[in-house]
Amino acid sequence: MPLIVTGTIGIDTIETPYGKAEQVLGGSCTYFAAAASFFAPVRMVAAVGGDFDDHARTTLARFPNVCVQGLETRNGSKTFAWGGKYHEDWNVRETLFTELGVLAEAPPMTPQEYRDSRYVFLANSHPSVQADLLSGFPDRTIAVVDTMDLWIDTARVELLALLRQVDGVVLNDQEAALLTGHPNPLTAGKAILDLGPTFAVIKKGEHGCLLVHRDGVAALPAYPTETVHDPTGAGDSFGGGLMGHIARTHAEQHFGDEPVTFEMIRQGLAYGTVIASFTVEAFSLDRLAKLTKQELEDRLAAFKELVRLD
Amino acid sequence: MPLIVTGTIGIDTIETPYGKAEQVLGGSCTYFAAAASFFAPVRMVAAVGGDFDDHARTTLARFPNVCVQGLETRNGSKTFAWGGKYHEDWNVRETLFTELGVLAEAPPMTPQEYRDSRYVFLANSHPSVQADLLSGFPDRTIAVVDTMDLWIDTARVELLALLRQVDGVVLNDQEAALLTGHPNPLTAGKAILDLGPTFAVIKKGEHGCLLVHRDGVAALPAYPTETVHDPTGAGDSFGGGLMGHIARTHAEQHFGDEPVTFEMIRQGLAYGTVIASFTVEAFSLDRLAKLTKQELEDRLAAFKELVRLD
Repeated sequence: MPLIVTGTIGIDTIETPYGKAEQVLGGSCTYFAAAASFFAPVRMVAAVGGDFDDHARTTLARFPNVCVQGLETRNGSKTFAWGGKYHEDWNVRETLFTELGVLAEAPPMTPQEYRDSRYVFLANSHPSVQADLLSGFPDRTIAVVDTMDLWIDTARVELLALLRQVDGVVLNDQEAALLTGHPNPLTAGKAILDLGPTFAVIKKGEHGCLLVHRDGVAALPAYPTETVHDPTGAGDSFGGGLMGHIARTHAEQHFGDEPVTFEMIRQGLAYGTVIASFTVEAFSLDRLAKLTKQELEDRLAAFKELVRLD
Repeated sequence: MPLIVTGTIGIDTIETPYGKAEQVLGGSCTYFAAAASFFAPVRMVAAVGGDFDDHARTTLARFPNVCVQGLETRNGSKTFAWGGKYHEDWNVRETLFTELGVLAEAPPMTPQEYRDSRYVFLANSHPSVQADLLSGFPDRTIAVVDTMDLWIDTARVELLALLRQVDGVVLNDQEAALLTGHPNPLTAGKAILDLGPTFAVIKKGEHGCLLVHRDGVAALPAYPTETVHDPTGAGDSFGGGLMGHIARTHAEQHFGDEPVTFEMIRQGLAYGTVIASFTVEAFSLDRLAKLTKQELEDRLAAFKELVRLD
């Protein structure tokens, strides 16, 4: 069940009311892969610079289900670096600095061995880069794309072209409103389906998520938690849990060339929700790196009980 | 299964992006009773002025399960009147005018025949008035109170005294934060339990609700709807659906003097959520007045399907 993710690997410096983490491993691809790896083997395609050190590599190696063959090291370049600060209101994030490094160069190459990937997630990046990477997976069963306000504003034409080629899109409520002009998430979700995708997952952070699919609608609250130390990567982890569940379930159920169903995606929302609730408990990948299968199963069960209706 | 609600009856003038409704029936007690009446007979205790006209009485009469014997008409006084305006962002409500009328006078009297009420909801009012009304129901099985920022700010001592006497409290996330000092709804809910109640229901409007109970936690999203024409009364309708379900279930299951369980309250959240989703579809009680049992059942089924996890 080859699941693949393309996106950024970053070196983050993060300040929150709970402390500061300097030069820790981050990036959309990283959080996605770490989260997805609890459910399915996952391949990464991303570029780093010569400054990507042993510590970062050791952290990645703590996720044995993550294949790093597609991690391209460019010795003369620098890894993407990002500095951010959160305040008591987690919804406000202040960017302190951004050093593009390898992101300003050519996109990473997809190894030939990865071309048979079936489940493809294009983490946030310029839509032209995403489209280029997408073309490398001709046998895909499903392609899902994440995006952000920057590309909606500055690369709308390219983004709209990309949306006609993918099965699903994952984005937050503000991005969905910006993309479609509809502040109502359900209306925005339906409008996204008119742009091409079969489904849209609208992430609402601490308020949960909404799935709008051609075959139905689903909604879930977030997992209520008191322990939020660093929200960085929550959305990417959500995507990882969602896609990891989809890849595992679709393969296990021997769906072959059949499309991924609404039901698989809907159930996947719970896996994304729960894995993201662990990510935010500590800085960087610290919590995921020590997460056990049992803790994950226990919280999944607790979450299902939390929303259970007779 | 005598369910009773005390609170305000108002004559509302409301502007929203979808139109304007002048001098229509409103008030916390009204919305609560209309919503609850779909699940259980409900008694109202509230005061109105001599200006409470036939049109308003006819509207109330469209809910045959609502008993208006406790509706006290004071011919020399005026009914509470409120004018409000909503903008595209439903979360911002502008109060245009407030004429207290009978609310500035003595609280309504509870009819002797109502003293056997078992399920008591104290809709938003001054906590001293709520405490006074509460003392009129010595045989109660459950008492739940709603409140607002005004009383948390100006009558905190009285509110804290009241909280020691009730089983549950229903309030929105901002009010919960104001009351406890905790912006995290789960932390706020736990802090409310330390003040006396067995449970707290934290309403998050379009983002759903959270139940924090001594026996567990539950969370639900709101029912995703594109049709919001007037959000007035959504929270009171939610309370009505919640308490209506509790009253019906507790009585039907012959719980006698046994307390209401966590499970009854948790399931009640769905009934509150769904009935509130109808209330907001039109101005005043217009949607609830023509709501059929079948429509209600259909949306309840759809909502349960929406949050279903295997």
